[in-house]
Amino acid sequence: MRGSCKRRRACGIRSFRRKLQSSKRERERETIRAIGRRLCSGLQRLRELRSHQVCTKQISRLDRWFLLWNWDTGPNYLHLFASALPVIAFGEQLRRDTDGSLSAVETLASTAICGIMHSIFGGQPLLILGVAEPTVIMYSYLYNFAKGKEDLGHKLFLAWAGWVCVWTALLLFLLTVFNACTIINRFTRVAGELFGMLISVLFIQEAIKGIVSEFEAPKVVNLNPESYQFQWLYTNGLLAIIFSFGLLYTALKSRRARSWWYGTGCLRSFVADYGVPLMVVVWTALSFTVPHKVPSGVPRRLFTPLPWESTALHHWTIIRDMCKVPPVYIFAAFIPAVMIAGLYFFDHSVASQMAQQKEFNLKNPSAYHYDILLLGFMTLLCGLIGLPPSNGVLPQSPMHTKSLAVLKRQLIRRKMVESAKESMRQRASKSEIYGKMQAVFIEMDHSPDTHGVVKELEDLKAAIMKEENKEGYDKGSFDPEHIDSYLPVRVNEQRLSNLLQSLLVAVSIFAMPVIKQIPTSVLWGYFAYMAIDSLPGNQFWERILLLFITPGRRYRVLEELHASFVESVPFKSIAAFTLFQLVYLLICFGITWIPIAGVLFPLPFFLLILIRQHVLPKLFHPYHLQELDAAEYEEIAGAPRRSISLSLDEREAPPDEQIAVEMCDAEILDELTTSRGELKVRTTSAHEDKNPVHPEFVTA
Amino acid sequence: MRGSCKRRRACGIRSFRRKLQSSKRERERETIRAIGRRLCSGLQRLRELRSHQVCTKQISRLDRWFLLWNWDTGPNYLHLFASALPVIAFGEQLRRDTDGSLSAVETLASTAICGIMHSIFGGQPLLILGVAEPTVIMYSYLYNFAKGKEDLGHKLFLAWAGWVCVWTALLLFLLTVFNACTIINRFTRVAGELFGMLISVLFIQEAIKGIVSEFEAPKVVNLNPESYQFQWLYTNGLLAIIFSFGLLYTALKSRRARSWWYGTGCLRSFVADYGVPLMVVVWTALSFTVPHKVPSGVPRRLFTPLPWESTALHHWTIIRDMCKVPPVYIFAAFIPAVMIAGLYFFDHSVASQMAQQKEFNLKNPSAYHYDILLLGFMTLLCGLIGLPPSNGVLPQSPMHTKSLAVLKRQLIRRKMVESAKESMRQRASKSEIYGKMQAVFIEMDHSPDTHGVVKELEDLKAAIMKEENKEGYDKGSFDPEHIDSYLPVRVNEQRLSNLLQSLLVAVSIFAMPVIKQIPTSVLWGYFAYMAIDSLPGNQFWERILLLFITPGRRYRVLEELHASFVESVPFKSIAAFTLFQLVYLLICFGITWIPIAGVLFPLPFFLLILIRQHVLPKLFHPYHLQELDAAEYEEIAGAPRRSISLSLDEREAPPDEQIAVEMCDAEILDELTTSRGELKVRTTSAHEDKNPVHPEFVTA
Repeated sequence: MRGSCKRRRACGIRSFRRKLQSSKRERERETIRAIGRRLCSGLQRLRELRSHQVCTKQISRLDRWFLLWNWDTGPNYLHLFASALPVIAFGEQLRRDTDGSLSAVETLASTAICGIMHSIFGGQPLLILGVAEPTVIMYSYLYNFAKGKEDLGHKLFLAWAGWVCVWTALLLFLLTVFNACTIINRFTRVAGELFGMLISVLFIQEAIKGIVSEFEAPKVVNLNPESYQFQWLYTNGLLAIIFSFGLLYTALKSRRARSWWYGTGCLRSFVADYGVPLMVVVWTALSFTVPHKVPSGVPRRLFTPLPWESTALHHWTIIRDMCKVPPVYIFAAFIPAVMIAGLYFFDHSVASQMAQQKEFNLKNPSAYHYDILLLGFMTLLCGLIGLPPSNGVLPQSPMHTKSLAVLKRQLIRRKMVESAKESMRQRASKSEIYGKMQAVFIEMDHSPDTHGVVKELEDLKAAIMKEENKEGYDKGSFDPEHIDSYLPVRVNEQRLSNLLQSLLVAVSIFAMPVIKQIPTSVLWGYFAYMAIDSLPGNQFWERILLLFITPGRRYRVLEELHASFVESVPFKSIAAFTLFQLVYLLICFGITWIPIAGVLFPLPFFLLILIRQHVLPKLFHPYHLQELDAAEYEEIAGAPRRSISLSLDEREAPPDEQIAVEMCDAEILDELTTSRGELKVRTTSAHEDKNPVHPEFVTA
Repeated sequence: MRGSCKRRRACGIRSFRRKLQSSKRERERETIRAIGRRLCSGLQRLRELRSHQVCTKQISRLDRWFLLWNWDTGPNYLHLFASALPVIAFGEQLRRDTDGSLSAVETLASTAICGIMHSIFGGQPLLILGVAEPTVIMYSYLYNFAKGKEDLGHKLFLAWAGWVCVWTALLLFLLTVFNACTIINRFTRVAGELFGMLISVLFIQEAIKGIVSEFEAPKVVNLNPESYQFQWLYTNGLLAIIFSFGLLYTALKSRRARSWWYGTGCLRSFVADYGVPLMVVVWTALSFTVPHKVPSGVPRRLFTPLPWESTALHHWTIIRDMCKVPPVYIFAAFIPAVMIAGLYFFDHSVASQMAQQKEFNLKNPSAYHYDILLLGFMTLLCGLIGLPPSNGVLPQSPMHTKSLAVLKRQLIRRKMVESAKESMRQRASKSEIYGKMQAVFIEMDHSPDTHGVVKELEDLKAAIMKEENKEGYDKGSFDPEHIDSYLPVRVNEQRLSNLLQSLLVAVSIFAMPVIKQIPTSVLWGYFAYMAIDSLPGNQFWERILLLFITPGRRYRVLEELHASFVESVPFKSIAAFTLFQLVYLLICFGITWIPIAGVLFPLPFFLLILIRQHVLPKLFHPYHLQELDAAEYEEIAGAPRRSISLSLDEREAPPDEQIAVEMCDAEILDELTTSRGELKVRTTSAHEDKNPVHPEFVTA
C-alpha cells in the first residue's frame, strides 16, 4: 500500500485527474449497484426468513433481551441527545399555552421516564420516545376547556388531564387486546403525509405567533417591569427576529453539511450531526453580547421553574387531586381520550414501522401489540404524576436505526479488514482470505442462519476471487480497504443506546439552569426549522411545488432524482389529487382553530382512511392512486443533462491504483433516506419493472 | 401547428414524458452546439474582416455616427437604470468619508453628464460610464489629506480635487498621444482579478463599517436629538442588521431567478432583471412599518442636500476657488493624479474591451485612443465643476452589449419567422423560403459583407433544406419557430439606449426626495451584495475555494462545469499561484489602511505587470502560467454523474411533435457569461485542443 502511494505521487497530473474521476465514478457506480443488490437481497432474505423461523424462534424472548445489552453504542447517543431540543421547544409552547401549568421540565421528565422504561421493557428498543406536537396541541385544548369551567379551572387541570390519560390507557389496552395493529396498513401515505404537513403548518404558525408575541408584554408575570416599556419591547422584538431567522438559516445550512464541498469529512460529519444544537448554543451565546445598558429580560429567555423549586413539586399530589374532579368531567374526559388514543396508536405504530423497515435486515422480530400495551402503561403513569405522555417519534426513530447500522458496518468492516491483512501477511491464498473474512462476519453477525449470510457475501467473494483466476497473480491487487460496497446492511440492535440517551435527557433536567438561558426567540426559529426541514421527501409537498412549474420547465424535474409518480401518473391526475389533499389540509387546519371542538382535529385523519378506501378509487384510476399513495418512497434517477463533452466519461480508466474517494457510509445513507427517515427505493425507470400504463387511461 | 397541438394532448403520458425529455435534450444539445459553432464563426469572421477592412472603411465616421441612432432600444435602458443604484451607494460612502462635501447628488450628476457626453461623442457608445469605487477611495484620501492642511481644509478640498482632475486630464491626453493603449494587453487576468477581489474586500469592509456605524451617533449633525439616546441608537443598529441582511439575502436570491424552477418565464425574467432595485424598494417600504412611537431618524435614512438647496450650489464657484489653492498643493496634486490616470486608463480600457468581446460580432471598430481622449475631457469638466469624475464600469458595460444582443436577436427572429410563414402560406419551396429569410437577415444586419453572412447562415440553410431531400416531403415538418439555434450573434449597436439611460440618471437627481427615503442600512446590505455577487466567475476566488476542498473530494469540482485550469495545471502549481495572489492581495489591502500614503494603493497593480512579465515565468512553468492567467475564461463541461439508469437517455426519441422548452436567449447568455460579463469559452476537454502537458513538468 505504501508503495502504491508513492507511485501515485510520482505520477503525472493527467493520470491523477483521470483516475480521480474514473475511480470515483466506478466506485460510486459500484456502491449504488451494491446498495441495490443489498436492498434486493434484503427482500429475498425476508422471504427466506419465514422458512427459518423455527430456528429463530428457538432463541427465547429472555435470551434475546439479554443479547440486546451489548456495549458497542458508539457516539450515537450523543447525536440523539439532540432530540431533547424539540422536547424543550414543545415544553416552551406548552408553558405559553397552559399559562405555566406545564413547561420544559415536565416534557423532559416525561421523555426521560418513558424512554428509560421503553429501552428496558420495550419490544422494539430501537424506537425513540418523546413528547410530540400532537400531545402538546391536545393538552392546549384540554387546558382551554378546563380553564373555562368553574369547578375545574387552572388548579384541577392536571388532575383532569390525569383522567384523560386513564381513559387513553384503557383504550390502548383494548386496542392491544383486539389485535388492532392489523389495521395500521390502512393508514396510507396520503394520511401520513397530510398529518406531517399539518404539523409543519402548525410549527410555522407557532413560530410566527412566537415572534409576534416577543413584541408584546408576556402574559405570565415577568420580574423586570422596566423591560415592558415600549422601547424595550420593541428592542426585544427586533432581537427575536434576528435570533430566530439567524437560527433558522444557520441550522438549515449546517444540516446539509455532509454534502459540502469544503472541509474535511470529519468536520463535515460533525457539523451535520451536531449542527443544529450547536447553532442553538451559538445563538444563545450571541444573545449575551447584548450591551449591559439593555435591562435584564431583554432578550426574553426560557421561563420555567427549576425542578427542585416548590412550584414544580405539586406533581406528587395529582393523584389526590384526581378524586376532587366532578364525575361529569371524569366521563367527559372520555372524548379527548378517544382522540389521543387514536393519535398515539397511529403515531407509535408508524414510528415503530419506520424504525424497522425491511431494508435494515433486522434480526429481531417486531412487537407492535406488546409495545402498544406498554405505551398504555406509560400513558397511565404519566397521567398519574401530571406529566404529558410520550410516544414514538419521527424522524428520530428511523434515524436511530440508521446510525446503529452505520456503526455496525464500521465494526464489521474493521474486524474483516484486520483478518484479511493478517491472512495476507501470512501469504494465504485468496480463498483462504475470503474464508477468514466470512468467518469473522458470521461471528459478528450473531446470525443462526449461516446459509443466508454466505449468499449475501457472494459479491464480496466474487470481488476477492476474481484476481486469482487472472494470469498475472499479484498479491497487491486486492485491497481489503475497499470492501465497503460488498458488506450487507446490519444493524447493531441493542437497548443500551436508547437507555443512555434517555438517561442523558433525565440528566438534562438538572441542567435546567443552563437550558433556561436559551432565548425564547431561538426556539421560535427552531420551530420554523423543524417545519422546513420536514418538507423535502414529503411527496405531498413535492407535488404542491410541481403545480408551480410551468409545462415547459418540467424537464428540470426529470433531470434530477425524482419520485416515481412524476413519470407514471398523468399530470392532471397529480394536480387533482394534490388539490384534493390541499383542500383537506385546509379543512384540518381550520378545525384546529375552533376553540374547544378543535380537540376533534384527529377525526378527519381517521375519516381519511374511509375516504381513501371507498371514495378515492372512484375518482382516480387504481394504478395512479396506488402510485400516488405508495407504501414505499420510490425514486427514479434523473436523466443526466448531457453536454457536448462526454469524452471524460467515456475514456478508458487505468485499472490500477485507486484514490480514496471521500464518501462515508453516513453520507450514502443520507442520500438514500427521506427526511422522515424512510428508505428510498431506487428504480431505473418506471416502465421497466412495472405494469405499463394502459393507453386508454392516459388520454384523460 | 394547431393540429399537432391537439394530437399531442390526446397522446399518452408515456410518450409525453419521453418527448419532453428527448426534445428538450435534443434542442439543448443543438443549442449548445450552435453556440459553439457561432463562437467559432465569430473567430473566423474576425480573421476574414481584416481582408474586408477596405470596404468597411468606406463608410465614413460620420455616416456610422448617424447609423447608430436607431430607435430599437427595447426595454434595456430600464434594466440599466438599475446601474444608478451603485452610484447612489457610492455617493453615500463618499458623503460619510468626506464629511458631506460630496454626496449622492454629485455622483449621480457626474454619471449623468459623462454618460450623456459619451453616448453622443463616444467612440464606443456601448460603454457605460459611472462613478466607480476606485474614484470614491481616491477622493476619500484626497479629503483626508486636504482636511489636515491648514491652508486647504474642508473649504478648499473640492478646488484642490479640481487641480487633481486637471493633472489627470493632462496625463490622459499624454497617454492618448503616445498610443499607450497598446500596453493594455499586459494588464492580464492576474492583475484584473486581484483588483476585483480588492474591490470586493473593500465593499465588505464598507458594509461592516456601515452596520457598526448604525449603532453609533452619526458624525454629521442630525436633526432629532432624541434618536441619539442609547435605546434608539441600539434599535437603529438592530434595524440596520435586519435591513442589510434582508436585502443581501433577497437580492442574491432574486438575482438567480432566471434559473428558478417555479413561475412563468416572464415572471422569472422580471425578477432576475429588476430583482435588486425591487428589493431596495421592498426593504425601503418595510422600513416604514416601524411604529410611530419610534422617533424620526430611526431607522437612519440617506442624508443628502437636495440639488436645488443652497448647499448644493457651491459647485459653480469651484473654478474661482481653484485660484486660491497654494501653488505647493497644485504641484502636490500631481502625485494622486498619476494614480488616478493610471487607474482610469486601465479601468476604462478593460471595460471597453469587455463591452466589445469578439464573440459579440460587433460591426463597428474599436476606438480606444479616442475614448481615452474623451475621458480626459470629461475628467477635466467634472473637476472644474467639483464633481467626482466617471469612467467605464464593469460589469454594466458588457451587460449592456449582452442585452442589446438579445434584443437584436428577437427583432431579427421575429421578421425572419414572419417572412418564412408568409412564404409557406404561398406554398414556396424550401429554397425559396430560405432565400427570403436570408434576404431579411441581410437587410436587418446592415452588413456590407454579404459573403460572410451567407456563410454564417449555412447552419440555418442546412436545417431548412434537409427536409427537402427526404422522400416524404411534408410541408409541416419545418417549423420556423425553431430557428433560434441557427441565428448568429448580432448586437443592436446604437447610441440611444446609453443616452436614454444617462438621461434617466439625470432625471433621478430630481427624484432625490424619494431616493432620500432609502435607509442607509439597505445600502450597506447592497455593498455586501455587490461584493458577493462579483465573486463567482472570478478565477482567483474559485482557486481560493479549491484550496479548501480535500483531495478526496475534488471529484465534485470535475463533475460540474469548471474552469479549464483545474484539469490542465497540477494542484501544487495552482496552490502556489493562489497563495502568491492571496499574499499580494493582503499587501494591497494593507496599503489602503495607511492614512495618506494609501493614495498610492494602485501602485502594486502597476508593479504586478512587471512581476508578471519578469518574475512569475521564473517560478512557474510557462504553460501553467498561461493557463492560470488566460485572457479568456475557458470552461470545461463536467463529467455527468452517472447512475445505474441511463435508459431514459439512450431511448430513441420520436422525431415528430416538439414540446416548447422554456429557455430564453437571456437565460442561455446568462449561463455563458461570468458575473464580470466575460463570455466563457466552452471546450470539450483541456487535452483535445491544446498542447498536452509534458510529463516531465508534472512530476513536481
